[in-house]
Amino acid sequence: MKNTYGNSITITLFGESHGEAIGTVLDGIAPGIEVDEDFIKHQLSLRKSYGDISTQRCEADEFSIISGVYNGYTTGTPICIVIENQNKISKDYSVLEGKARPGHADYAAFSKYHGFEDARGGGHFSGRITAALVAAGAIIISALNKKGVYIATHIKKCAGISDIEFGDFFKDIKELNNKLFAVLDDKAGEKMREKIRIAANSLDSVGGVLETVVLGMPEGVGEPWFDSLESMLSHGLFSIPAVKGVEFGDGFRLTDMTGSTANDEFIVKDGKIKTETNHNGGINGGISNGMPIVFSSAVKPTPSIAKPQRTVDFVKKENVNIEIKGRHDPCIVHRARVVVDSITAIILADALTMRFGTDYLKD
Amino acid sequence: MKNTYGNSITITLFGESHGEAIGTVLDGIAPGIEVDEDFIKHQLSLRKSYGDISTQRCEADEFSIISGVYNGYTTGTPICIVIENQNKISKDYSVLEGKARPGHADYAAFSKYHGFEDARGGGHFSGRITAALVAAGAIIISALNKKGVYIATHIKKCAGISDIEFGDFFKDIKELNNKLFAVLDDKAGEKMREKIRIAANSLDSVGGVLETVVLGMPEGVGEPWFDSLESMLSHGLFSIPAVKGVEFGDGFRLTDMTGSTANDEFIVKDGKIKTETNHNGGINGGISNGMPIVFSSAVKPTPSIAKPQRTVDFVKKENVNIEIKGRHDPCIVHRARVVVDSITAIILADALTMRFGTDYLKD
Amino acid sequence: MKNTYGNSITITLFGESHGEAIGTVLDGIAPGIEVDEDFIKHQLSLRKSYGDISTQRCEADEFSIISGVYNGYTTGTPICIVIENQNKISKDYSVLEGKARPGHADYAAFSKYHGFEDARGGGHFSGRITAALVAAGAIIISALNKKGVYIATHIKKCAGISDIEFGDFFKDIKELNNKLFAVLDDKAGEKMREKIRIAANSLDSVGGVLETVVLGMPEGVGEPWFDSLESMLSHGLFSIPAVKGVEFGDGFRLTDMTGSTANDEFIVKDGKIKTETNHNGGINGGISNGMPIVFSSAVKPTPSIAKPQRTVDFVKKENVNIEIKGRHDPCIVHRARVVVDSITAIILADALTMRFGTDYLKD
Amino acid sequence: MKNTYGNSITITLFGESHGEAIGTVLDGIAPGIEVDEDFIKHQLSLRKSYGDISTQRCEADEFSIISGVYNGYTTGTPICIVIENQNKISKDYSVLEGKARPGHADYAAFSKYHGFEDARGGGHFSGRITAALVAAGAIIISALNKKGVYIATHIKKCAGISDIEFGDFFKDIKELNNKLFAVLDDKAGEKMREKIRIAANSLDSVGGVLETVVLGMPEGVGEPWFDSLESMLSHGLFSIPAVKGVEFGDGFRLTDMTGSTANDEFIVKDGKIKTETNHNGGINGGISNGMPIVFSSAVKPTPSIAKPQRTVDFVKKENVNIEIKGRHDPCIVHRARVVVDSITAIILADALTMRFGTDYLKD
Repeated sequence: MKNTYGNSITITLFGESHGEAIGTVLDGIAPGIEVDEDFIKHQLSLRKSYGDISTQRCEADEFSIISGVYNGYTTGTPICIVIENQNKISKDYSVLEGKARPGHADYAAFSKYHGFEDARGGGHFSGRITAALVAAGAIIISALNKKGVYIATHIKKCAGISDIEFGDFFKDIKELNNKLFAVLDDKAGEKMREKIRIAANSLDSVGGVLETVVLGMPEGVGEPWFDSLESMLSHGLFSIPAVKGVEFGDGFRLTDMTGSTANDEFIVKDGKIKTETNHNGGINGGISNGMPIVFSSAVKPTPSIAKPQRTVDFVKKENVNIEIKGRHDPCIVHRARVVVDSITAIILADALTMRFGTDYLKD
Repeated sequence: MKNTYGNSITITLFGESHGEAIGTVLDGIAPGIEVDEDFIKHQLSLRKSYGDISTQRCEADEFSIISGVYNGYTTGTPICIVIENQNKISKDYSVLEGKARPGHADYAAFSKYHGFEDARGGGHFSGRITAALVAAGAIIISALNKKGVYIATHIKKCAGISDIEFGDFFKDIKELNNKLFAVLDDKAGEKMREKIRIAANSLDSVGGVLETVVLGMPEGVGEPWFDSLESMLSHGLFSIPAVKGVEFGDGFRLTDMTGSTANDEFIVKDGKIKTETNHNGGINGGISNGMPIVFSSAVKPTPSIAKPQRTVDFVKKENVNIEIKGRHDPCIVHRARVVVDSITAIILADALTMRFGTDYLKD
Repeated sequence: MKNTYGNSITITLFGESHGEAIGTVLDGIAPGIEVDEDFIKHQLSLRKSYGDISTQRCEADEFSIISGVYNGYTTGTPICIVIENQNKISKDYSVLEGKARPGHADYAAFSKYHGFEDARGGGHFSGRITAALVAAGAIIISALNKKGVYIATHIKKCAGISDIEFGDFFKDIKELNNKLFAVLDDKAGEKMREKIRIAANSLDSVGGVLETVVLGMPEGVGEPWFDSLESMLSHGLFSIPAVKGVEFGDGFRLTDMTGSTANDEFIVKDGKIKTETNHNGGINGGISNGMPIVFSSAVKPTPSIAKPQRTVDFVKKENVNIEIKGRHDPCIVHRARVVVDSITAIILADALTMRFGTDYLKD
Repeated sequence: MKNTYGNSITITLFGESHGEAIGTVLDGIAPGIEVDEDFIKHQLSLRKSYGDISTQRCEADEFSIISGVYNGYTTGTPICIVIENQNKISKDYSVLEGKARPGHADYAAFSKYHGFEDARGGGHFSGRITAALVAAGAIIISALNKKGVYIATHIKKCAGISDIEFGDFFKDIKELNNKLFAVLDDKAGEKMREKIRIAANSLDSVGGVLETVVLGMPEGVGEPWFDSLESMLSHGLFSIPAVKGVEFGDGFRLTDMTGSTANDEFIVKDGKIKTETNHNGGINGGISNGMPIVFSSAVKPTPSIAKPQRTVDFVKKENVNIEIKGRHDPCIVHRARVVVDSITAIILADALTMRFGTDYLKD
């Protein structure tokens, strides 16, 4: 499978940054799910440019649901959502033809597509494609919420500045999902944005770490081989441009612990089985154990920077210099978080539907 | 898909730790690949218990190839390899019935399989299943080597002790693949083993980080959405028991860099396009760029420890104490590395076969 | 997989008959394939209403390729084609709500979608969806032709009238692909249309058999289990509304032969291995043998007829009578043939791409 | 996917006719399904040689379940069943090397596997592989029966002799599943066997048509595109060696009817919605409608005949004569019927599990 992912619920993505439109086909959604277009707009707004720390390309992101929804409810057949590209200025990019932007897919894409790729603005590799993913994810996030499953992502670290840790998951999730800049500590957020501005002024960029939490995931979902929840989630997360690391629970920090510290001891509390700690991030042996699912994604600094860089012209096979003009994000961490939420929702809904049947989201 | 993974080349795993046998079906392998049983044995030996720092359960790991190989060459039809379980002592585990071992899948499995799971020795969740994966991987590793693709994994860090970094990739790979304890610096290895012994004596366990490098991977292989090389590899890696984090190139460290540092500048060298650095681990936009593919996997400390722990009896739903008797590994990092090599080989061979056709490995 | 089919090349269909639009995502197509919009129009015209023997609903079938094509060539990324529904009159159908049209999917769909389905005009079950499939198929048919693979389908039988048999495959294929009513013997065609008119005047409908031939398919493509060419093709063919039977070569007639008659004896002719007869339709053991691939599809009479019929109201669970007003086809056999050609092209291109790699169509 | 089929429940086949063993991995089966080894033996006995009208190769078909079953119940993890090849006489086949048996896959396989295939006895293309499929199917057939879903296949026609039609489905199914030669009319069966003997004496072979009926299939299962029940079933059926045609309900006969005859009118009977006729074989729009599912499979005459035939040596590329010695079936129709039942059970169980969740078979 190429641009399609999932088993019982699948998402297909199409489109190029500067083509006519981008979009998605979301298939396998139970019939009878209410589709709230305002919530889709809300989710898309979380992905948009943020004030002075984002690209000046401003897309309206007006979407059309052209199939699969009737009278405001899903029909059970594929939902196609199309988002037109309106504010596309190609001239900024044309000068780059043949010049591989460092950190970008230009050269790898050329090796694969032999020069037929629509390279304008990154084409099919552009972060812009994620708008379609967010629109699709919004439909599922609403449905999961009604089933008691809640998802949120915060900027755990950005440009070296750390956010505080989650306190009350339920309250934090609710607040995060209404913030344009998703931090638990707004002061940390202010410092992050200051760092982003500094990077922008230096014609440079910064990255960060996103931490996601999922509350209310039923236990007993996932497979030992090969569709562990970790496998399924990481598969989706690593498709998001700029994600270069994924860890579950304490992830890499687990490697410095001893077993007696890393093991989450079980306890019966109020008649329910829980763990006292959650170093394993709610997943044991690839299967949900009923605890919050927690994972982090490493987002590298935006590769598009205005600073002059050395590179090659891969058509002429010669060394050249490059200055990437145009409208770039000095940081995409804050915009990526809703993309992470969206792919997470899609993948967990798929796993739940595989486990409990195609009507699960509706019942 | 559950216990099957891959597109053009697929691997299926079956078996339980204390059942009759474990095994694998490897499908989609080009016809005419030489199958070297000695090399399979060699690879299986790398996964075995290591002297005094491993479990005392010692399996002969005698394998039978019962289909798909004829006169020493692959036929192109599915290769089934069966490995009998010989040294299975069930009594050590029976006392645990209903008691969830902390850090293990027992409780999650019970939620999924309703008590019908064969829980002895971890059943289908046991690290033992990876022996089948190693046997399958060995066939592919041989074939990839003939195509100029080389894979090796070293213990980057274990119990807090770090190995040195790769020097000459080609030489290091060759050496690593003949070492039982895969470190570049044998002195670091000695210190690691000492730490493992200390953990064992404390009835505890330790974890570590494995770093893998792939040389000779052709460029232009992988997909932007959703089968990026990172997605495909992480999907497989996170199925290995105990892996809780995966990062490509500099991974999480990229998040503290600026774009101008993290970007790998391209350069034409001897008529070939390369990058000066390799912070992105040989993958841009999900597609190989011709540089070495580099990634790290976080292996948590073995959850089976002899120390008394608190837990629950999930059948009776009550709090209990647990002492896990039996034969445990105080560390599985050194044994896991050949498992990482094997799944890496299988996944890359799949991507190459998708890209270049079913005869790729043979031509 | 639901609305997506294929391995290396996949097709996804979306849309409802009376929704905003229908469309398709065609993925996995090699980069650099020329896209001839006139040929797509031509192919769509073959699916259109035919004079006085078809529904009076007349759709312009104006399509937009909104991704995956750049400067007239495929980019290698997903091709999304959208076809708006323009001539949609819903009132004809609204009276049917709750009334199961005999021979239609209404009741089965209600059992699956619980009443949330967009039932207007058959919704997602409508033959209209096949327009998208034809548009996608057109891109591949052009590409296959350049590789020397040619496909055509004729109306072997319709309303009891039989066409003559293929003579010179190459010449016949060329002619058929330019005929609106695809018969080898135009006189037989005239008789078929007369029979169709008679059925229409009786407020009834008729069916027929389509026979497809593929010339130039390379040998050695397909799998014994489970992706035999027959399996892959029948999977696609049985998704076409109204197809209720598929046979390869002499199909059901083989069951009355003896082995010595049914076996196709091999012969070396001009240095090439061929068979003297082709009772097996070019496929042995699921794999192409280099002979023309031949198969037939049974198309049942259109279930929408104007004659009064007895049925049930599945909402009220009571027996009722139904008179289906509106614009119906007294026969869809002649319109279905280009749909058969299209799905055949997509599936064979997928099998070829799996076998020879993702650049196959381009090389 | 190659030798693996299915979505939530998958079957993988491996093995060669004269290799060490054949077998299967059946995955996705709910935990807690009782596994009755006697019933597996019974099912395997239905596939065995029948008295004087079958090959004299007599395999014990002793199977070992080496994973996925514990204490007599499925565990929920993959079930691997291995059947050793005991009675393998290779010398009968060795003389054929390079000689393409007409009607067989030898030449197509050579084109695909380049001579590395294990061609002895048909290798991976042999009907022998279906023994593994029958063993796997037996586990599911038992489970489906407990859910009220019943399957049976009779020999509708063989060597030109027709069986009578189904009367009382429930009674007929029960009787058929205990008959070695599955006809409703034993006198017709005697005539068929007489015809088979005559063919054998003429060093020839005969074929036939199998008709399958499924009672109790819940409505609302299947997909419009592309996983219609017809698509899924035909995909599996066409993988069975010798099947060259599949039709649902009245299939090809529908093409000679008018819509008013072919349409199945709905009726409310005893509070349940049914159809008065079942020309569509229980499937509308790819989805079950609650009526019995009925389909027929065309089985060609066994290609292995003792009569001298002309063919080619594909290694030397020259015309030769061939006399196939050894042990052949003059007819495989009666042996194939349990294979059809088995693949039908596996595919329907998969569709049901996709629809209702992984515990469906158990609940």
